Amino acid sequence: MPLVVKKFGGTSVGNLDRIRNVAKKVKKAVENGEKVVVVSSAMSGETDKLLEYCYSLSKRPNPREVDQVVSTGEQVAIGLLSIALQEMGIPAVSLTGWQVPIETDDIHTKARIKHINSKRIKEELDKGKVVIVAGFQGIDKNGDITTLGRGGSDTTAVALAAALKADICEIYTDVPGVFTADPRIVPEAKKIPIISYEEMMEMASLGSKVMQIRSVEFAAKYKVKIHVRSSFNDEEGTWIMEENEEMEKVAVRGISHDLKESKITVVKVPDKPGIAAKLFKTLGDKNIVVDMIVQNVSHEGYTDISFTVNKTDADYAEDIAKEVAKEVGAAGVDRNDKIAKISVVGLGMKTHAGTAGKMFDVLQKEGINIYAISTSEIKISCLIDEKYAELAVRALHEAFIEDKDVMVID
Amino acid sequence: MPLVVKKFGGTSVGNLDRIRNVAKKVKKAVENGEKVVVVSSAMSGETDKLLEYCYSLSKRPNPREVDQVVSTGEQVAIGLLSIALQEMGIPAVSLTGWQVPIETDDIHTKARIKHINSKRIKEELDKGKVVIVAGFQGIDKNGDITTLGRGGSDTTAVALAAALKADICEIYTDVPGVFTADPRIVPEAKKIPIISYEEMMEMASLGSKVMQIRSVEFAAKYKVKIHVRSSFNDEEGTWIMEENEEMEKVAVRGISHDLKESKITVVKVPDKPGIAAKLFKTLGDKNIVVDMIVQNVSHEGYTDISFTVNKTDADYAEDIAKEVAKEVGAAGVDRNDKIAKISVVGLGMKTHAGTAGKMFDVLQKEGINIYAISTSEIKISCLIDEKYAELAVRALHEAFIEDKDVMVID
Repeated sequence: MPLVVKKFGGTSVGNLDRIRNVAKKVKKAVENGEKVVVVSSAMSGETDKLLEYCYSLSKRPNPREVDQVVSTGEQVAIGLLSIALQEMGIPAVSLTGWQVPIETDDIHTKARIKHINSKRIKEELDKGKVVIVAGFQGIDKNGDITTLGRGGSDTTAVALAAALKADICEIYTDVPGVFTADPRIVPEAKKIPIISYEEMMEMASLGSKVMQIRSVEFAAKYKVKIHVRSSFNDEEGTWIMEENEEMEKVAVRGISHDLKESKITVVKVPDKPGIAAKLFKTLGDKNIVVDMIVQNVSHEGYTDISFTVNKTDADYAEDIAKEVAKEVGAAGVDRNDKIAKISVVGLGMKTHAGTAGKMFDVLQKEGINIYAISTSEIKISCLIDEKYAELAVRALHEAFIEDKDVMVID
Repeated sequence: MPLVVKKFGGTSVGNLDRIRNVAKKVKKAVENGEKVVVVSSAMSGETDKLLEYCYSLSKRPNPREVDQVVSTGEQVAIGLLSIALQEMGIPAVSLTGWQVPIETDDIHTKARIKHINSKRIKEELDKGKVVIVAGFQGIDKNGDITTLGRGGSDTTAVALAAALKADICEIYTDVPGVFTADPRIVPEAKKIPIISYEEMMEMASLGSKVMQIRSVEFAAKYKVKIHVRSSFNDEEGTWIMEENEEMEKVAVRGISHDLKESKITVVKVPDKPGIAAKLFKTLGDKNIVVDMIVQNVSHEGYTDISFTVNKTDADYAEDIAKEVAKEVGAAGVDRNDKIAKISVVGLGMKTHAGTAGKMFDVLQKEGINIYAISTSEIKISCLIDEKYAELAVRALHEAFIEDKDVMVID
């Protein structure tokens, strides 16, 4: 009997009819002989509504209390899903994060899973029940509710699949799978049938919205086989699994873009050792994740340091940068929210040279200026003006994905 | 420093402005030197909305899952209240039922509190925080969320006051206190300044809606001093406390009515020993609380047995009565939902004779037929047709409360 973890996002459980629809899907799986653990997000809109309540009462609400409030969204969804399943004659039980328990650290609103105690889930499965677990949430050592941050339900699903040694982790979503680019921007974008963890991590972190990056990291670490698919039909979606030789034959798997970052620049910093270290250590201490970093060439003993952070952290990061700027005698701090990060991703880059050159060439031909570049073994990212984001993605998709003949340059 | 438990009902926290208003009240109390534990209900309408979801998915949803869903209502309210208080500079922390923990039995949707572990609350109070506890909910020995049933937040407040040995338990509500009758029916009804636990229990159980009966039982048992008052102004409300001689001087404290019961009659039961016992034991085993019982005089070896139950239990009770009727060879089962129970309540009845006679006299003069009578030391209840309920309450209020001259008959 295969054990399958099935994760349903907020849209899939967006209203009572959709909850019934999910229950039908699960019923079918049970009747096909699967042992099923369901992970559910909150009904779509609920989390935003609850967050709005919190932020109406305070500009900086206590994160512990935000988690207390927001975590109710999934709790409602799992209870309702359990009721719907039982109504169809399928024994089921819902468990919140603390009931599992899913133990996390105490960084509220973006906690990390430390340990999953799978005893109760196994007991309930052994009783022949479908176990429905609240995504996105856990409990810290103080007995307080934590949440994993946006998209955290994916992480819950993958972590549960790992802890339970499940055969498959199915991520049901409102799109048919992972695409070579955002289909809303590139109508020619195609569904990717199979993608490696590493590629998916780059795609996810770069804004492909289908899965949260941490969940893919988890999957890679514990070799959890993921199947991302539509909750509205039975078609195959995209499999995310360990890389193999076949995968390397494609240089570029997809083009992704990310509008979620802000660029912050500390202007005219005295070019002395330790200043950059001080800035980024302070940001790190405050749990702010810095993505790209560029330091200009020193000019008359001064330099500019730019970095990008998630827009949600930008206010805080700007404050910190201003403090550090004052301390070290810099001229000031600039901020630009109108930027985009465009990336090409593919395992094949490891063996196919020339991808970077081709990318810069394509952008240059479109007259797009590049502010910063970052690379890994399997991706190249360029920071550009937000207004060129769609143009850049279309041009790169055409050059790397659609035009098979010129895919490999060297 | 007095320790005060303050309970706010759903209307008091019905929207964000009202939550701010509650926070202001609590802030004022803290600034006046009170140590405060707040108990909050769900925002008004939330519990009903969540119940509607559950019952849309199933006519008889699993009670464990109903509790899982419904308990989120208070969780949202306490988190928001904590955020509002912290925004006003008052340190606060919210705790759900399981976080306290408030341990209950496992009778879902109408659980009883077994034990309150007050360790965490005391620790948080010692840190100078206002502790905000979710009303209406607890946790059973399986680690599942339970709810105490409608009005259970009062019980939470009183039980917490008892466990913490609080000086006062304040019940904030949308009415100014306990009245001599429902003011919507009797415009002459007056606020009662002070009432004994025993009287209040009779008033509460008879439908005075201000406080749930179990909470008053709890208060009586642990001698918790209660102050029921309006959440919209600072006026004194009604104090509920131990009886004293002064209280006995009033024969009738108030008139209450209850439209929440149904009468079920098992018709033409063979008049043999053990049949009534069988019926009521079966009902008791199913956790159905029976209120009034009337057995008619036997006629040709047959008798009718009538009893009343809460309307929410009536379907279930009717089913059980039908089964038992079949087993014992009774003719069938009748049900009447259009009944009312009208009661006069007062400590003074212990020493003032003639109240019953006067009550029957008043009802007879209005032409109201009495189906059943039940009495205790301090109350007399009559079961009548629902359509006469308001008339009966008005006539009894006039006779016993307004007309001071003839109050004591003997």
